[in-house]
Amino acid sequence: MKILVANVNTTASMTRSIVEQAERAASPGTEIVGITPAFGAESCEGNFESYLAAVAVMDAVTRYEGPFDAVVQAGYGEHGREGLQELLDVPVVDITEAAASTAMYLGHRYSVVTTLDRTVPLIEDRLLLAGLRARCASVRSSGLGVLELEEDPARAVEAIVEEAAIAVREDHAEVIVLGCGGMADLEAAITARLGVPVVDGVAAAVTVAESLVRLGLSTSKVRTYAPPRRKRVTGWPITS
Amino acid sequence: MKILVANVNTTASMTRSIVEQAERAASPGTEIVGITPAFGAESCEGNFESYLAAVAVMDAVTRYEGPFDAVVQAGYGEHGREGLQELLDVPVVDITEAAASTAMYLGHRYSVVTTLDRTVPLIEDRLLLAGLRARCASVRSSGLGVLELEEDPARAVEAIVEEAAIAVREDHAEVIVLGCGGMADLEAAITARLGVPVVDGVAAAVTVAESLVRLGLSTSKVRTYAPPRRKRVTGWPITS
Amino acid sequence: MKILVANVNTTASMTRSIVEQAERAASPGTEIVGITPAFGAESCEGNFESYLAAVAVMDAVTRYEGPFDAVVQAGYGEHGREGLQELLDVPVVDITEAAASTAMYLGHRYSVVTTLDRTVPLIEDRLLLAGLRARCASVRSSGLGVLELEEDPARAVEAIVEEAAIAVREDHAEVIVLGCGGMADLEAAITARLGVPVVDGVAAAVTVAESLVRLGLSTSKVRTYAPPRRKRVTGWPITS
Amino acid sequence: MKILVANVNTTASMTRSIVEQAERAASPGTEIVGITPAFGAESCEGNFESYLAAVAVMDAVTRYEGPFDAVVQAGYGEHGREGLQELLDVPVVDITEAAASTAMYLGHRYSVVTTLDRTVPLIEDRLLLAGLRARCASVRSSGLGVLELEEDPARAVEAIVEEAAIAVREDHAEVIVLGCGGMADLEAAITARLGVPVVDGVAAAVTVAESLVRLGLSTSKVRTYAPPRRKRVTGWPITS
Amino acid sequence: MKILVANVNTTASMTRSIVEQAERAASPGTEIVGITPAFGAESCEGNFESYLAAVAVMDAVTRYEGPFDAVVQAGYGEHGREGLQELLDVPVVDITEAAASTAMYLGHRYSVVTTLDRTVPLIEDRLLLAGLRARCASVRSSGLGVLELEEDPARAVEAIVEEAAIAVREDHAEVIVLGCGGMADLEAAITARLGVPVVDGVAAAVTVAESLVRLGLSTSKVRTYAPPRRKRVTGWPITS
Amino acid sequence: MKILVANVNTTASMTRSIVEQAERAASPGTEIVGITPAFGAESCEGNFESYLAAVAVMDAVTRYEGPFDAVVQAGYGEHGREGLQELLDVPVVDITEAAASTAMYLGHRYSVVTTLDRTVPLIEDRLLLAGLRARCASVRSSGLGVLELEEDPARAVEAIVEEAAIAVREDHAEVIVLGCGGMADLEAAITARLGVPVVDGVAAAVTVAESLVRLGLSTSKVRTYAPPRRKRVTGWPITS
Repeated sequence: MKILVANVNTTASMTRSIVEQAERAASPGTEIVGITPAFGAESCEGNFESYLAAVAVMDAVTRYEGPFDAVVQAGYGEHGREGLQELLDVPVVDITEAAASTAMYLGHRYSVVTTLDRTVPLIEDRLLLAGLRARCASVRSSGLGVLELEEDPARAVEAIVEEAAIAVREDHAEVIVLGCGGMADLEAAITARLGVPVVDGVAAAVTVAESLVRLGLSTSKVRTYAPPRRKRVTGWPITS
Repeated sequence: MKILVANVNTTASMTRSIVEQAERAASPGTEIVGITPAFGAESCEGNFESYLAAVAVMDAVTRYEGPFDAVVQAGYGEHGREGLQELLDVPVVDITEAAASTAMYLGHRYSVVTTLDRTVPLIEDRLLLAGLRARCASVRSSGLGVLELEEDPARAVEAIVEEAAIAVREDHAEVIVLGCGGMADLEAAITARLGVPVVDGVAAAVTVAESLVRLGLSTSKVRTYAPPRRKRVTGWPITS
Repeated sequence: MKILVANVNTTASMTRSIVEQAERAASPGTEIVGITPAFGAESCEGNFESYLAAVAVMDAVTRYEGPFDAVVQAGYGEHGREGLQELLDVPVVDITEAAASTAMYLGHRYSVVTTLDRTVPLIEDRLLLAGLRARCASVRSSGLGVLELEEDPARAVEAIVEEAAIAVREDHAEVIVLGCGGMADLEAAITARLGVPVVDGVAAAVTVAESLVRLGLSTSKVRTYAPPRRKRVTGWPITS
Repeated sequence: MKILVANVNTTASMTRSIVEQAERAASPGTEIVGITPAFGAESCEGNFESYLAAVAVMDAVTRYEGPFDAVVQAGYGEHGREGLQELLDVPVVDITEAAASTAMYLGHRYSVVTTLDRTVPLIEDRLLLAGLRARCASVRSSGLGVLELEEDPARAVEAIVEEAAIAVREDHAEVIVLGCGGMADLEAAITARLGVPVVDGVAAAVTVAESLVRLGLSTSKVRTYAPPRRKRVTGWPITS
Repeated sequence: MKILVANVNTTASMTRSIVEQAERAASPGTEIVGITPAFGAESCEGNFESYLAAVAVMDAVTRYEGPFDAVVQAGYGEHGREGLQELLDVPVVDITEAAASTAMYLGHRYSVVTTLDRTVPLIEDRLLLAGLRARCASVRSSGLGVLELEEDPARAVEAIVEEAAIAVREDHAEVIVLGCGGMADLEAAITARLGVPVVDGVAAAVTVAESLVRLGLSTSKVRTYAPPRRKRVTGWPITS
Repeated sequence: MKILVANVNTTASMTRSIVEQAERAASPGTEIVGITPAFGAESCEGNFESYLAAVAVMDAVTRYEGPFDAVVQAGYGEHGREGLQELLDVPVVDITEAAASTAMYLGHRYSVVTTLDRTVPLIEDRLLLAGLRARCASVRSSGLGVLELEEDPARAVEAIVEEAAIAVREDHAEVIVLGCGGMADLEAAITARLGVPVVDGVAAAVTVAESLVRLGLSTSKVRTYAPPRRKRVTGWPITS
């Protein structure tokens, strides 16, 4: 089985880190292929960048040559999953949704902890659209940007663990979802300090994608995610 | 006052038609400027095309030279308004939202009548995100595509009036919102047959944009719609 | 165009102040006429007073001689808009609703800041009924009464700005709605300190009323707001 | 124990009928006193009439001389209960709410069946405000006015039983609430035909009022329903 | 009239205490019979114990010999009421629901104060299922177990009054519901300190049960609560 | 990896059928062990039977000797998952929830099709509690009982396919969930006729259980699902 894991930003080192996470979660025999968009922002932290990423990911996946069995969109809280579902016959799994669904098996309520404050509403909106917000206790941010996170990992760990602690203590979260692709190394720190399960979106999404493929299930094509009608589309793919 | 009215598809005749609607609604002294995206689909009827339109509209507005006071995004049920809000200091008004808000002043519940069935979930989702769905009785489609609508206007009128009648009779809508940029000529037909107010999104959005400018109000920049952070963005603008 | 702006209490100085706000927001050529109820409380701060105001406003508008194009009900969080809609053919705009709708164009979430704590549930209920609560971050009170507000404006400004600051910081409001007719002078103070847009209900409602008139739209008469059936009504109008 | 049962319209025969229903539900030793407003409409079928009734009931109860232990507001779907709660120290029970609460003990979902179609939104709104709508399957109308109901009882019974049957069959209601003060004689007909419990609001409200009195409970005065502040109220009571 | 009041745990002294509360609330002529399950936990503080209690209460009520007119299930936040409704023709009243319904007549919002923190989600879930959560300001716990409550009543009173005070001050509760069968003596303490009505579930449920019996109403049998189909059930009743 | 798959009724042939479905979905190396309760109903079609099943499953799992890695509760719409989560350290997956979560990856909205009408409210309630109802288009029943389903499979297939067709056509479901353990053979029939993905709960739950085990995740023990407190529990396990 081959799963494309699409980074949403143009930073290749981030793609590699995502692929490593995905590989750790994958079953034996599953091949993970990382996809990096050809255009867009070096990190996604808002709607402009996220919409650009949505199109850039569709562009990159469209241009990918060779077969694949599923796609994981590996940007937490980003736009675009619905477009991929229209373009593809194979399952498409968004890490925001996979993480939330997985967390809901583990406790009565979950919280998302992310980095930059301005992405909190994007995440809340994606969970609302996905119908996965009823048991979300809170979406909290540590106040750090994606790139800062890479620059000072120790401070990032501390800040995020602190937000997770508040989520458990004040919002009554029983499970923590890590709301950022680059935060995967924090799992051990949070579990050690708080004793709650920590869900990483990339890992969760890979297992969901594998499960769907194994069950022979893919996107319904009867209405919302039917293939685009045949018509004139100018300038597509963007990087053709 | 100058208002940019952005079409979401690449069909220039549609832009002209939208501009005419906008001009009919505008106050004396308001200048309407139509914007047509440089790339994307000739009509928007799904998520792939809508995400592409979101980026194409941002691209076109970014490249517009000269001052303007507000932007109306004139694609019903489309993605993208949030991105424009981040990029601009002037008010951005989405016709989906302006139409719903306007309808809510006129009756206890409103219904949206649109063309293609597959866009119904997109519209429902945009209304949900906008927080304007509580008083939406239904979103109904006539089963016609945007282009068919242009080709056989008489049949389109009939089909849409019929859906509006069902919305009033069965869903208890008291106001009808026209869920498509190209459907403006139907207002008289629906009002004549059903006796209910009919709201056109472009007209509603122009008055909202004028009102915001006149009140000196624009998008809050403290969180969700803060300007994008300074960072490397590859390949932007797309058509540079 | 002539817009009646109805105060909900019997304090004529308040009516004058409301008319001034309305005039500042009105387009050239719009005439604002203030209406003061002939009975009721000198300020509205609860359900008894608000229900009385609902009837007193209907009474005063009913007795108004001469034509008018729209009515603005200028009591924040008060009962009565639905009754006026039944009695009149012209648009009726409630300032609570106009302010919320306007705020929703400007940010992801808005908060209402009002004076007396006991009116908070009335405001929450009006927003709930209007279907405008999904994006309301909070309704907060400064703990001051309407009349105290007039007596010590400086203290009132300070108390309300402080609540607005909490709304932005803790409730993540991106826009502030002033939840009281007499609080209009506070706009500059809040924007200066917090950097967020501030929406005044009277100003917002006047622009909405103008827009509806210009678009040729008025209340739907097919169901909820149909004219009262012909029947015996004793003692009406109250002040006949 | 003495319970005031307030009719919301000015039709004395309706008050007598309500009192009889109340007396049938009351415990031995409970005295029922009917209250008829001194002004307002001969039947309440919309917001104008309902707001007028809210004030007329407050007026009539305020002028009532002698002690009483509770008030039942006996207009289905009408405004006003909150105002009475501010004015009185004794419990106030609205029949819309008492009927819904009672129905919820009896089945998974309930439907309200009322007469005139235009009152349906008022009832829905009252249930929404009361927090009792989650288990409401539907509010349905037979299309008859309150007075027609009195004029042709046989036809009214038939029309209402038919709506109740639709509510059970299509909306999956398991309990029927009669949404009109004058419909009490229909209970037997509906139960006989449909085999579901039928709740009459007046009867339900009397038992609730008795229970609250017996438990020594009354309206909380700490916030929403605190007594009106001491201030100048012109022209009150209306009929003084 | 005879009402069975079923304790959910196996502690006989708790049953006696519940019966005493019920008797204080009952009308003259109402006989209260306490039921203690033959198996299960000595106190219910979680789902395992609560599911066991659901079956143990059904078992005990099934084996009860002689007629009765209604059943009160006297475990706050516990499972099981729906099963009893299927097995019995007489009304079944759950104290969680009776307390919430009663509280809603008394104030704009109510809070539940209970003992052990882990039962908070159970209570929230029961209120959600019952459709009674819209006006619930909060469910708060004092952090004490049911048995500790019996061992050190003074400390329990203090801890619970403190939580009730926070509910009123911060969550804007206007009414307090005692979320535990054994907490009835606290009513006076809370009312004395906070000046808000306090609702005890057992007392409320007894008056509801009496009212339903007096109105001749019982569980609808048309769908959800129809009697179990005739089939092989092994090992039932458990204690046969 | 060893997964216990617990039937909720006492019919051993049903357990075998469930085990076969589970085995078809399981990865190589996963061992499926069927569990049949020692007491309870031969099929679960209501709350009494479902509560009994909840306890019988906990009883059977508690008495199971030897290690296991996860439990699947294989009764659609049944009570009990929360109790198992308290008793066990390994993941517990309910098929109702696994099916819904899986369906939500495949389409905008899903419908559940089940057999007996009376179980519809149980299913709706379980989805509500699980926070998975926002994107549920409908829960529909074919009107057949579990045992009838086994007796006349051809008629059952026809009836269920028909309900699924209505769900797609009228409720706009894009995915069908089979709401009954014994309905697995219907998948091909529905997909063939309607062209939509069909999700079987047992298969979905097995893949979820495997994923959780592989990710090293299990139930959070910090609050709702903490182990039962040490206390006297009479008569437990039931079949000891």
